[in-house]
Amino acid sequence: MTDHVTEYLSTGPSFREGQVIERIEAFRKRRPRLRDSVVTLAHGAGGKASAALVDAVFVEAFRNDHLEQLGDGAVVDMGGQRIALSTDSFVVQPLRFPGGSIGHLAVHGTVNDLAMAGAVPSWMTAAFVLEEGFPIDELREIVADMAAAAEAAGVQIVTGDTKVVPRGAADGMFISTSGVGRVPEGRVLSPLDVRPGDKVLVSGPIGDHGMAVMLARGDLAIEADIRSDTMAVSGLVEQLLAAAPSTRWLRDPTRGGVGTVCNELAQAAGVAVVLEEESLPVRPEVAGACEMLGIDPLYVANEGKFIAVVDPAEAADALAALRSHPGGEGATEIGEIAEEPTATVVVRTGFGGTRIVDMLVGDPLPRIC
Amino acid sequence: MTDHVTEYLSTGPSFREGQVIERIEAFRKRRPRLRDSVVTLAHGAGGKASAALVDAVFVEAFRNDHLEQLGDGAVVDMGGQRIALSTDSFVVQPLRFPGGSIGHLAVHGTVNDLAMAGAVPSWMTAAFVLEEGFPIDELREIVADMAAAAEAAGVQIVTGDTKVVPRGAADGMFISTSGVGRVPEGRVLSPLDVRPGDKVLVSGPIGDHGMAVMLARGDLAIEADIRSDTMAVSGLVEQLLAAAPSTRWLRDPTRGGVGTVCNELAQAAGVAVVLEEESLPVRPEVAGACEMLGIDPLYVANEGKFIAVVDPAEAADALAALRSHPGGEGATEIGEIAEEPTATVVVRTGFGGTRIVDMLVGDPLPRIC
Repeated sequence: MTDHVTEYLSTGPSFREGQVIERIEAFRKRRPRLRDSVVTLAHGAGGKASAALVDAVFVEAFRNDHLEQLGDGAVVDMGGQRIALSTDSFVVQPLRFPGGSIGHLAVHGTVNDLAMAGAVPSWMTAAFVLEEGFPIDELREIVADMAAAAEAAGVQIVTGDTKVVPRGAADGMFISTSGVGRVPEGRVLSPLDVRPGDKVLVSGPIGDHGMAVMLARGDLAIEADIRSDTMAVSGLVEQLLAAAPSTRWLRDPTRGGVGTVCNELAQAAGVAVVLEEESLPVRPEVAGACEMLGIDPLYVANEGKFIAVVDPAEAADALAALRSHPGGEGATEIGEIAEEPTATVVVRTGFGGTRIVDMLVGDPLPRIC
Repeated sequence: MTDHVTEYLSTGPSFREGQVIERIEAFRKRRPRLRDSVVTLAHGAGGKASAALVDAVFVEAFRNDHLEQLGDGAVVDMGGQRIALSTDSFVVQPLRFPGGSIGHLAVHGTVNDLAMAGAVPSWMTAAFVLEEGFPIDELREIVADMAAAAEAAGVQIVTGDTKVVPRGAADGMFISTSGVGRVPEGRVLSPLDVRPGDKVLVSGPIGDHGMAVMLARGDLAIEADIRSDTMAVSGLVEQLLAAAPSTRWLRDPTRGGVGTVCNELAQAAGVAVVLEEESLPVRPEVAGACEMLGIDPLYVANEGKFIAVVDPAEAADALAALRSHPGGEGATEIGEIAEEPTATVVVRTGFGGTRIVDMLVGDPLPRIC
C-alpha cells in the first residue's frame, strides 16, 4: 500500500494544487498522531498506527521544500505526460497460500496501486532480499509466479536487484516491486471530487486474502476452504471507467481492509462514508472464520478487490460493467457518501441501528502481504 | 546494482534490437553458470555468483515471451519518450558509517543507476521493511538523510511503503528504492558501441565505500580514517556527456568493484579491458587496509564513482570536464579497450607484466550496500 497522504491527494492535475494544499492541512488535522518511540507490528498493519507513522516520519521529511508535491504525489509529470509511480514491499508468511504466493502478490499489489491511480500499468522493477540458505528451486517457483502474473497483467519486469543477508537476518525472502504507468489524458481520480450522494461500490466479496493467509499458517484450529483473491484489477478498472467516466475515486482495500480505506477517504475528503452492513459481500466461509477469530471482515485484507466511489447517475452502469468482467462478478453497491458526520465511517446495521467504524487499530493479522 | 544483463543491454534504441539479441546469445555463453542449490552470501556480492543467479533465475523467467525486452532493459518507451527505471534494495550494516548512512545509499544508489543509463533522475519511490522494536528516532534520522540526499540530487521521493516484521525476522531495517528519469533525445549508451582503442576513465579514487563500512563494524583491528564516497554522480555525468558526447558506456562500480564491472563490460561487448595498475587511483589508507585484509581494491565497492568508456578523441576533454566538477577532481584514465583477449580484463603491472582480473568470487565484504 503506497504512502497514504500522497496516494490520497495524488491524482489531481496540478492546477488544483492550491485547493489540494488547503485540504492537506485539514486532512492532517484529522489524522492519528504518532505516540510510539519504537516501531511496532501495528505500524505495518495499514491501520491507525501506520497512518500516524507515515504522516509523522515520511510525509514530514519528504514534504520539505516541495509541499506542492503532496498535490501530485504518486502521479508525476514527465514531458507533459502524467505518469503514476507506485511501490510496495512484500513480507507475507507463508510464502505460498491457497490461491497464490508472494510472487503473485508482488506483481498484483503494484499493478493494482497503479490502477487505483487511474494509470495503465506497463513497467515494473523487482528487488529481492534473500536469506542465506534460501532454496534456489523455491526462488525459481516464486519468480515464475511473478513472470506469469506480470504477463497476465500486461506488464513487463524490466530490471531488478538481489541482496543476500546472513541466516537469521531476514525471514526467507522479501520482495519489493515498483511500477510505472501512464494516466490517460483527462482522467482524474481524487478524494477532492467525492461528494455527498455518491455511491460506494466494491468489486467483489471481501476478506478472502487475509483469511486465506491466516489459515495457511495452520496455527489456528480452523479448517475452511478459503483462497486468496489475489489478482490484477487493472482490466476491471478500465471496464469501470469506460462505463462510468465520472468515477471519483478508487482504492484497493489491502492491509487495514475496507474499514480502514473508507476511513482514509472520509478523512481525505472530509465527508461521511455510510455503509450498509447487509450489503457487504462476505463469503460464508470467511464470515465464519472471522467470527471464530473475533475479527470484523471490514478489517481483513484483500488483494484483488477495489472500492469505487461513483456518480449516482452512473452507478447502475458501473455495476453492470464490473459484473460483466472476470473478477467483478460479485460487484455490489455497499453504501454512499454523506455530508455528516465529517471524516467518519458509519455502518447501518440490519436492525436500523448504526455503528461507527474506525481505522484498524493494532495488528490482528500480521504479515498478510 | 540493477539486473546485470538488462542493465548492460539496456540503453540502445530499439532499432538495434536484432543486433542486441545476437549479442545476448554470445554474451550469455560467456557468463558464469549457476551451480548452487541454495542462496549463499556470494549471490549477493555482485560478483560471479550474483551474475549466475541473475541469468539463471531472473533473466530466464522474465525474458519469456519478451526476449526483445533484453534489448531495452531498464530503458523503456513511454509515449515516445525514453524513460529509465532502476531499483535497488539496501541491507548495509551498520546503518551508519563514516561519510553516510543507509538513507544516503538508498537515494544515491538509485540516482546513480539512472545516471549510468544516461537518464536525468527525477522521481523516486521508497519502501521500508522495519523490524519490530526499531527506534522511531533512528528511523527519523535515516529518513532525514534520504530527504537531504534527494534534495541535493534534485529528485523527489513521491510515494512509499512501510512493512513491519516481528523481532528477529529482519535485521533492523531494509530500504528498497526505485527511480525514474528521462533519457535526453539522441543519447545512447551501450556496451555495443564500445570498440578497441576507446579509453577507460574512472571518476575518482576507488574502494572508499566498502572499506569505510568494513572498518565501521569495528570487528577488524584496523584504525584508518576512511569515509564512504557515497554521493549522487548525476551532475558529474551531465558534465562528462556535454564535454564528451560520443561517450560509449557508463557504469558505477558498486558491489563487486571496478574489477567486476570491467569484466561485465568485457563480456557484454566481447572485448578486452586493459587496465594500467599504476594508474588505478586508490587512497593510501584504503590501499593499506586492503593490503592488511588481503583484498584487491579492484573488488571493493564504491558508491560515488563511475567508470566511463570514451572515444579516444574526446578523452582529454572528458577528463578535464570531470576534474572541474565537485566529486570528479580525482578523475583518471585507467586503461583502454582492446580486441583480445575477448571478454577478459587484463591489468598491466608496473613491471611490464600482466595479470588477468576475473569477476569477484565469493563475498569478502558482506552487506556493504
